[in-house]
Amino acid sequence: MAQEKIPQATAKRLPLYYRVLQHLSESGKQRISSSELSEVVKIDSATIRRDFSHFGALGKKGYGYHVERLLSFLRNTLNQDELTKVMLIGVGNLGTALLNYNFLKNNNIKIVKAYDTNAHKVGTMIGETSIHHIDQLATDDNHDISVAILTVPAEAAQSVAETLVSGGVNGILNFTPVRLSLPKDIRVHHIDLAVELQTLVYFLNNFPLKNQGGE
Amino acid sequence: MAQEKIPQATAKRLPLYYRVLQHLSESGKQRISSSELSEVVKIDSATIRRDFSHFGALGKKGYGYHVERLLSFLRNTLNQDELTKVMLIGVGNLGTALLNYNFLKNNNIKIVKAYDTNAHKVGTMIGETSIHHIDQLATDDNHDISVAILTVPAEAAQSVAETLVSGGVNGILNFTPVRLSLPKDIRVHHIDLAVELQTLVYFLNNFPLKNQGGE
Repeated sequence: MAQEKIPQATAKRLPLYYRVLQHLSESGKQRISSSELSEVVKIDSATIRRDFSHFGALGKKGYGYHVERLLSFLRNTLNQDELTKVMLIGVGNLGTALLNYNFLKNNNIKIVKAYDTNAHKVGTMIGETSIHHIDQLATDDNHDISVAILTVPAEAAQSVAETLVSGGVNGILNFTPVRLSLPKDIRVHHIDLAVELQTLVYFLNNFPLKNQGGE
Repeated sequence: MAQEKIPQATAKRLPLYYRVLQHLSESGKQRISSSELSEVVKIDSATIRRDFSHFGALGKKGYGYHVERLLSFLRNTLNQDELTKVMLIGVGNLGTALLNYNFLKNNNIKIVKAYDTNAHKVGTMIGETSIHHIDQLATDDNHDISVAILTVPAEAAQSVAETLVSGGVNGILNFTPVRLSLPKDIRVHHIDLAVELQTLVYFLNNFPLKNQGGE
């Protein structure tokens, strides 16, 4: 990853900073110190200062950070002004939850289309998203959609993912427990809910917290 | 974290290793090399070898790892033989999806109880989990449940979390977008689905993949 300037760990926190700063801006806050921000986002202030230092010196000693300037910087960085269209495959409970979840609230990501096998769901809408039959996925023209959310049953995950990639998708948010085998230029972000729960339990059992903040 | 021996990054991968090795064991596989395992879990083999080295030298050159021995080691490490009881608060679409999700399949974590405000849901079961009224949460005796999954609407998150902590919960898997303010000894693992999606889009736009693996 030679072209990476921002460390991956920092990059992962940018959307969080963005959303929190937007809340602060909406409530009239004009400037904020790293320690105040630390209190809100639950990330220690040294990390926040280090993260922000990757974009140049945005804060001033004794003044802190200018909320609007920080926001406009993050907005550019996160491409907030450019709409990213997303499709969702698998409108079960989890898929429905994600469609109801207001992704649009603080950013320009929109789930524009959903697919399912269930004929009763096809043709209906959830929020602003229309549901199409999965059989159409391979033939529909979705060239303007490069990101997909995968919430299908495990046994369908690999084949649906392959169909998505054939159709031009290059980023998949994978909620199934399946580790997908895809070409190396496809970015898969894997959220395995069982692993998340197991990890929490493991940490609770092995690393009890005393005087340190939560994650 | 003075008592930590296993790095946090390694610890996060243990549940994944465990589940994959269990699959391999079930399909009759007796030994596996780090490169074979790498192919399955999509983590590079050097990382796998480094991870396993934290538990002592479990692999042998030219032989690889003994699947059953690795499994029994991970089972102990992950406390697979001890049942962890979990409760889930908020039986909307996401909560229902999690209740339907078979957490039990490969581990000893069980959602034994769920709470919701909806009187129509109270008294029913989803899978093996009974649904109780949220008003009972503060008075029910849940001293044997130390972990909770939070899938309530954002506006209820903080107050429900406080009630959980008063009742003895010390670990929360937080699916709401709210950053909870809780005592420092409470471990909160935060999964913000909007942030996950935004992060994927950000990485796609900024760090296009060429010849490297997913994630």
